[in-house]
Amino acid sequence: MVLVSARNPLNIGAAARAMSNFGCLHLRLVNPYRVAFREARSAVGATNVLAATEEFDSVAAAVADCSLVVGTTAVRHREVQHPLRRLEYGARLIRKQLPSARVALLFGPEKTGLSNDDLSHCHWLLRIPTRKEHISMNLGQAVAVCMYELVRAAKVKPERAKIKPAGSGELERITSSLFEVLQISGYVNPRLAQTVEIKIRRMIRRMDLGSDDAETWLGMLRQILWKLHSAKHEV
Amino acid sequence: MVLVSARNPLNIGAAARAMSNFGCLHLRLVNPYRVAFREARSAVGATNVLAATEEFDSVAAAVADCSLVVGTTAVRHREVQHPLRRLEYGARLIRKQLPSARVALLFGPEKTGLSNDDLSHCHWLLRIPTRKEHISMNLGQAVAVCMYELVRAAKVKPERAKIKPAGSGELERITSSLFEVLQISGYVNPRLAQTVEIKIRRMIRRMDLGSDDAETWLGMLRQILWKLHSAKHEV
Repeated sequence: MVLVSARNPLNIGAAARAMSNFGCLHLRLVNPYRVAFREARSAVGATNVLAATEEFDSVAAAVADCSLVVGTTAVRHREVQHPLRRLEYGARLIRKQLPSARVALLFGPEKTGLSNDDLSHCHWLLRIPTRKEHISMNLGQAVAVCMYELVRAAKVKPERAKIKPAGSGELERITSSLFEVLQISGYVNPRLAQTVEIKIRRMIRRMDLGSDDAETWLGMLRQILWKLHSAKHEV
Repeated sequence: MVLVSARNPLNIGAAARAMSNFGCLHLRLVNPYRVAFREARSAVGATNVLAATEEFDSVAAAVADCSLVVGTTAVRHREVQHPLRRLEYGARLIRKQLPSARVALLFGPEKTGLSNDDLSHCHWLLRIPTRKEHISMNLGQAVAVCMYELVRAAKVKPERAKIKPAGSGELERITSSLFEVLQISGYVNPRLAQTVEIKIRRMIRRMDLGSDDAETWLGMLRQILWKLHSAKHEV
């Protein structure tokens, strides 16, 4: 990660923090504002990255040992002789290179972005798919989004929920208890009793209950039933 | 997007800016620090979102009209009764709901994250896949990454490079010109001439030249050839 002429210490710190979050630990600064870099060193949760940050006088020197140099730009159709790739696709190309080559990702100064001179060191350019009415991103956030896309898993299976799902027996006990409660409460038209029971059975299944919650439900329904039965006797 | 008890005006402003970048324009704040919200209103490029921001006294009120409420957490295995999903997968579920339902994405205060009480309003939780050595993200950056994942295209084809590629005829003219230059320069062992020519032909094709660049190359080679020829005559 190469930041060119970053002005704002908060942005340098934020960039370093996002890099650390996503496991990219090599930050290089080209002509940072001295004061900005000094202040940035104390950024929350980024001390490791910032302690190892290297400074360079030129883009050429900062990317000299990199075999792929990718520039970032907010502009959609820049008048430059560079292929412009959306982050989703560009990150895929970068990931392919990473095992075998050193890749530099360049970010320009906050107000102006990378200059044409900076861009001339790049093999191609990357753009984050912001909406066209508001393309300019905060530097720290742009870095975070790029870092995320680089580590993002292409295929993520649903993680196993830690919750043990309720068994059919539990669900059926809930169904019959609730049905009984509703019958006693006068909710169920006796002629339509079977239809209502089926509706309730389906509804309970749609709730996608965990085993613990099912037990709670059963306890609640039992309590309601007890109350309803004792009320009947009292009348 | 719901920010619960955000303290830092820069974070509120940054969250609003990232939302605007990615086209999510409805920000709700639960118990923001008054001063923080007032200061945030001037955030660069987020005035529209901030002008329309609504304030609420409780999470319950802020999500009352939402049919899916998703909490964000940095914790991996929280001791809560909630399914925890990685952003890549969770965002897919949110995208499915968005056309038909109002979805709330909750972010907690900077230092502590969402409380158990806040979490009890959530249907499930989302986590950003940071590395385990450094899971805690800056709030504005976490918002940016989530917004990006929500608009991110699942399948991005390589965008057509705006550059017209060089034709085979041009590439072959470059090949033969370069070969001639190399022959005259004494680079080519006459016994291996054919092998060298084939190597050069392949190398030129690997350069993936655009039509404009190909013309430039041809011009340069013609000039070199002219010089080499005139030098020969001078000798």
